[in-house]
Amino acid sequence: MPELRQNFMTKEWVVIATERAKRPDQMVVKRERKPPVWFSQNCPFCPGNEKMTPPEILRVPDGDKWKARVVPNKFAALSPEAKPERIIHRSRRRMGGFGEHDVIVETPDHSLSMAMMPDSQVADILRIYKTRYDQLSLDPRIAQVTIFKNHGTDAGTSLEHPHSQIIATPVISYQVRQRFQEAMQHFDDFGCCMFCQIIEEELEEEKRVVLTSEHFVAAELFASPAPFCTHIYPRRHMANFSDVSSKEIADLARVLRTVLAKLYIGLDNPDFNFTIRTSPTECTGVRYFHWYMSVIPRLTRTAGFELGSGMFINTVIPEEAAEFLRNVQVETAVGVG
Amino acid sequence: MPELRQNFMTKEWVVIATERAKRPDQMVVKRERKPPVWFSQNCPFCPGNEKMTPPEILRVPDGDKWKARVVPNKFAALSPEAKPERIIHRSRRRMGGFGEHDVIVETPDHSLSMAMMPDSQVADILRIYKTRYDQLSLDPRIAQVTIFKNHGTDAGTSLEHPHSQIIATPVISYQVRQRFQEAMQHFDDFGCCMFCQIIEEELEEEKRVVLTSEHFVAAELFASPAPFCTHIYPRRHMANFSDVSSKEIADLARVLRTVLAKLYIGLDNPDFNFTIRTSPTECTGVRYFHWYMSVIPRLTRTAGFELGSGMFINTVIPEEAAEFLRNVQVETAVGVG
Repeated sequence: MPELRQNFMTKEWVVIATERAKRPDQMVVKRERKPPVWFSQNCPFCPGNEKMTPPEILRVPDGDKWKARVVPNKFAALSPEAKPERIIHRSRRRMGGFGEHDVIVETPDHSLSMAMMPDSQVADILRIYKTRYDQLSLDPRIAQVTIFKNHGTDAGTSLEHPHSQIIATPVISYQVRQRFQEAMQHFDDFGCCMFCQIIEEELEEEKRVVLTSEHFVAAELFASPAPFCTHIYPRRHMANFSDVSSKEIADLARVLRTVLAKLYIGLDNPDFNFTIRTSPTECTGVRYFHWYMSVIPRLTRTAGFELGSGMFINTVIPEEAAEFLRNVQVETAVGVG
Repeated sequence: MPELRQNFMTKEWVVIATERAKRPDQMVVKRERKPPVWFSQNCPFCPGNEKMTPPEILRVPDGDKWKARVVPNKFAALSPEAKPERIIHRSRRRMGGFGEHDVIVETPDHSLSMAMMPDSQVADILRIYKTRYDQLSLDPRIAQVTIFKNHGTDAGTSLEHPHSQIIATPVISYQVRQRFQEAMQHFDDFGCCMFCQIIEEELEEEKRVVLTSEHFVAAELFASPAPFCTHIYPRRHMANFSDVSSKEIADLARVLRTVLAKLYIGLDNPDFNFTIRTSPTECTGVRYFHWYMSVIPRLTRTAGFELGSGMFINTVIPEEAAEFLRNVQVETAVGVG
């Protein structure tokens, strides 16, 4: 029988559709992938083509070369030149498109997926996220900083060279405010952080846990809107990503890389997004919010029901997805929960 | 310069990305479409293959044949056999997957897109929506009825034969509740229906209007999350789709068909979804909500920024999309606003 599950963090209902249910390994989407190359002549992110991007913001040096670099997005969605002023005319509310839009070139190697990188390189990338997060959130005009990665065309990218992006906006998005308000309400009702409670319960129930480490817990979402949505929660209560310590970053790099490698091996290099969900920049230190990473493989399409109701239909049972991922062997030494 | 716009109905911010801006006609996605056929041997929705579907719920007869039929979805997301009982265990909230899932086979003709149908056939389909809406909402266990259509693989369907679907759920989705609450708040603040106000303002400003008829207004959304999202609003205040009159249905059929034909001709038969946004079944007759249809072409992919922030980036300026659609000629007699 199918089941409805409610996401405790967002109060969104999801249909776990057992009549349509698929074994986790049936979710593999066969794709034509280009053969890997170290270098691609027309790629703006390959070494030697640095002039094809706007001037560099920062780099992780490697002698006189680089291991990773940050540049402004050449086709930025928002502009630092715009004025963040609101113009309200009855129902029409608009604002200058002020903001920053970074691209993080994750590696000089054109085809090196994050799933296949050494942990130290993933740690470099996470340190860049934190550095840029800290820099961008100093600007009082910035209200929210969204860090994300698109891998593959179904995840919304046409550029193959491994990269992630950061967009800083002068407004707090509805989605972030909604999650924030739910978390505040929970704290008001029960006197504890909703996320700390979920982590405790996931560790107790075990069956949705993919892996655990000293500082992090990776688990499938109980009310996962799509197959294999995986959350990576820090065990320590921190509202904002900027609170992460360097020891935790090294550990997160291992955990993130292992989750991505399990997806890569188990699901044949699926297209995916990841994002860091954190409190708005002005709300560091609050007791009721807890940042985490969300990894979202893009194996299915949203259709009219999802658009019309906001409810998702998931054909893979989250407990089975977790078991499947636990059983995918990768060559790293992170403990399996 | 880019611009941020806030959707007045949902309070969601959208980036209108002028740096990435495209002319409306650049949004055409070239697709391999199969040559049209009247009949496909293995199609469960083609005449003669009626046994391939579960037993019929209703039909629009055509002698001893049919013009359209409703059947239960063979791979239903929810089941009428399940019990809509809640089981709450700390943060884990679940419920039996009770519900109904209809398929409306819109025509016996395997390749006849709704955009190309006679208006009378579209009216038949809309009447089926209303009949099934009324029947399903009589069940006190049903809280919400979502009517939608998926056209093309990017819109989430693999079946070519023109069909739409109805899913009735025992819960009100978060998205519907959110829109409902915003509308209620607006009524509380200003003493008028938010949607009636928007319709009045769109007619006054004209530039986002695609077409108007006696009973309906089709307009691009001011803060459209994606290119060519088109709303079709009834001019008369009605909270619930079930309040629509038969005169209005005939008029809506013409307007919907014209909008779909403009998209078909102007954007080379794009994949699209449509859905009817209406009040929950228990809230007919309220003064603050107003049903409407939302037509959503699927020309772009959501990426990590959209997933991580809930904000969308739209590369087509809604006023230009409206102008483009106004200028697409279709052979019908609906007035252009």
